[in-house]
Amino acid sequence: MNSLERYQDFLPLSQIHPNLLLGEGDTPFLRLETLMEEFDLPDTFAKNEIFNPTASFKDRGTVTAVHAAKASGIERIGTVSTGNMGISTAAYGARAGMKTFVFIKKDTSIEKLFSAGVHGPILLRIDGDYGKLWHESFRIGKDHGIYFMNSTDAFRIEGYKVIGFEIFSQLSSERPTYIFAPVSSGGHLIGLMKAYRELQQQGLVHHIPTFVGVQAQGCSPIAQAFAAGMLKYERVDKTETVAQSITNPDPPGGNILLKMIREHEGIIMDVTDEEILTAQRIIAEREGIFCLPASATALAGLLKLQKKQKFDPQDRIILVITGSGVKNIKVLDKSRMKIHDASLSELSKTMASLTE
Amino acid sequence: MNSLERYQDFLPLSQIHPNLLLGEGDTPFLRLETLMEEFDLPDTFAKNEIFNPTASFKDRGTVTAVHAAKASGIERIGTVSTGNMGISTAAYGARAGMKTFVFIKKDTSIEKLFSAGVHGPILLRIDGDYGKLWHESFRIGKDHGIYFMNSTDAFRIEGYKVIGFEIFSQLSSERPTYIFAPVSSGGHLIGLMKAYRELQQQGLVHHIPTFVGVQAQGCSPIAQAFAAGMLKYERVDKTETVAQSITNPDPPGGNILLKMIREHEGIIMDVTDEEILTAQRIIAEREGIFCLPASATALAGLLKLQKKQKFDPQDRIILVITGSGVKNIKVLDKSRMKIHDASLSELSKTMASLTE
Repeated sequence: MNSLERYQDFLPLSQIHPNLLLGEGDTPFLRLETLMEEFDLPDTFAKNEIFNPTASFKDRGTVTAVHAAKASGIERIGTVSTGNMGISTAAYGARAGMKTFVFIKKDTSIEKLFSAGVHGPILLRIDGDYGKLWHESFRIGKDHGIYFMNSTDAFRIEGYKVIGFEIFSQLSSERPTYIFAPVSSGGHLIGLMKAYRELQQQGLVHHIPTFVGVQAQGCSPIAQAFAAGMLKYERVDKTETVAQSITNPDPPGGNILLKMIREHEGIIMDVTDEEILTAQRIIAEREGIFCLPASATALAGLLKLQKKQKFDPQDRIILVITGSGVKNIKVLDKSRMKIHDASLSELSKTMASLTE
Repeated sequence: MNSLERYQDFLPLSQIHPNLLLGEGDTPFLRLETLMEEFDLPDTFAKNEIFNPTASFKDRGTVTAVHAAKASGIERIGTVSTGNMGISTAAYGARAGMKTFVFIKKDTSIEKLFSAGVHGPILLRIDGDYGKLWHESFRIGKDHGIYFMNSTDAFRIEGYKVIGFEIFSQLSSERPTYIFAPVSSGGHLIGLMKAYRELQQQGLVHHIPTFVGVQAQGCSPIAQAFAAGMLKYERVDKTETVAQSITNPDPPGGNILLKMIREHEGIIMDVTDEEILTAQRIIAEREGIFCLPASATALAGLLKLQKKQKFDPQDRIILVITGSGVKNIKVLDKSRMKIHDASLSELSKTMASLTE
């Protein structure tokens, strides 16, 4: 039984079709012992969403949205994406045999562009404001009969809930818990919080974890609003960060997220590019997990928060690792990465100098 | 219970350490209905090994080899790799806190090089014959106290067996079955066959599946020997193929593999670069799976074999998908991939022309 079937009672899916699935979900939950020791952290875990068909958590939402499309007889789907969601939608669209439209940001990495293109969607690389494009897509969808399953699509958020249900079942007992996740449009974190709300409604959990949404300082409208105690975010004009996957200047889920975070005493914070790249390097070097800069915001946020507040040894911390670093290989802290060129004939000599 | 624990009785591991694991195994098994219809195939499945920590089957072998290192008190590990095995060894070495040496081929893609480098190994990019480097590494390992867990390492092959055990458990009944897998050094296919031999010894299966190993024509010493009815392969001097991950000109497991394949009436065949790139495109476009060219040899082999022999409707076919296409993004059949550049202001016009 897969994860969607297991949690079907919580999802708006009357039927799950094996031929629309690609093996999403049931992702690993890893204890990060080396990090815990090095940074004096309580129990810390990675919920590793890289283990999804297109190596990001977006697949969780795409699979439910594609099911919704199928149930309604919709044959054309689309998405607006910085990359990951476009790849995911292209892959599931191919699997489902649906005509798929992917609107992708102009500065998207070539790895992401080709990873979407390989599935044969109609692929548009668009020059213009990403926030405005998001709104424009719905108008275009209406004109051309395309269901744009964008970041905060209701069915997409239902799929993100499943990550929360799995975390709940992978934690063996109920203790105060922090869940750190990157924030862009807001859909992902809304889904995670919704999962715990529903578990609470069913009497399955008593305490909602403390959710910590992390944005990149170069595009952090929600974190700025949170810090200023505002109920609504203000869109930002310019975005500039290494965390390219989380750069929505006008996040459609922003205000709902601010409301939910206030209700559950969560936190929205931001981190700098330097903190992000350091966190990305640390989790790769110490724990063997190579994630996107955007995903590394979770660890960057944790390390930053730790400087302000002491965690209790009884606390448990979960980092949601949202996507694979190989999809944006150029953005890395390579300061400590050394590639030694050697010839086979001189290999002994080279090795002698390296192991001295 | 994870896959290693479930099959521990079949493995030479007295203990499984959670802090050496990265979530490997229990990979999806997907029915490929669109392909079956389009190519008139019997039940065909993908065993998708992309769902591993570093997005290739190599992790199956690395995790067992790293356990063996730990059990023996070995602190330095290494590997010789075209890329995937280097990434895998670097990631597990990081997780285990072991000093890790990666010898990587000079022409390895930048995606693979950085994906290994990010984990902080000592990374050597080596100019010279890959087959000779393989042998040289053991001498260097002896000199410097490094356990080189190369492609046909005995513990590595034990890990590959687990893929075979999972296929066995994911198939719901025993029927004649073909298992297609890419072949380079031979270790992977030896592991798969060993799994079924052991299942047979335990009385758990009665028929060993027909194993079909597929090489790229540009480096196919084992397939050439098989076609000529030879007991031993002859090393090739020059390798030239898009399937860069399976280019061992002097495959150390070659002769053992030839023997096992003869004993179980399997097949070793080769496919052209054109067949490989077409297969890679087909499985991405029809089933939403983006695999490496090397991995696409499995489907290329199936489609080629189908022209020579008719499959029975009762047959079942399994394609082992060994690694993710995103790790070598430049090698793709882009002939049908169209990227439409558009500006936000002209989007309506562009869409009108595309959906006419």
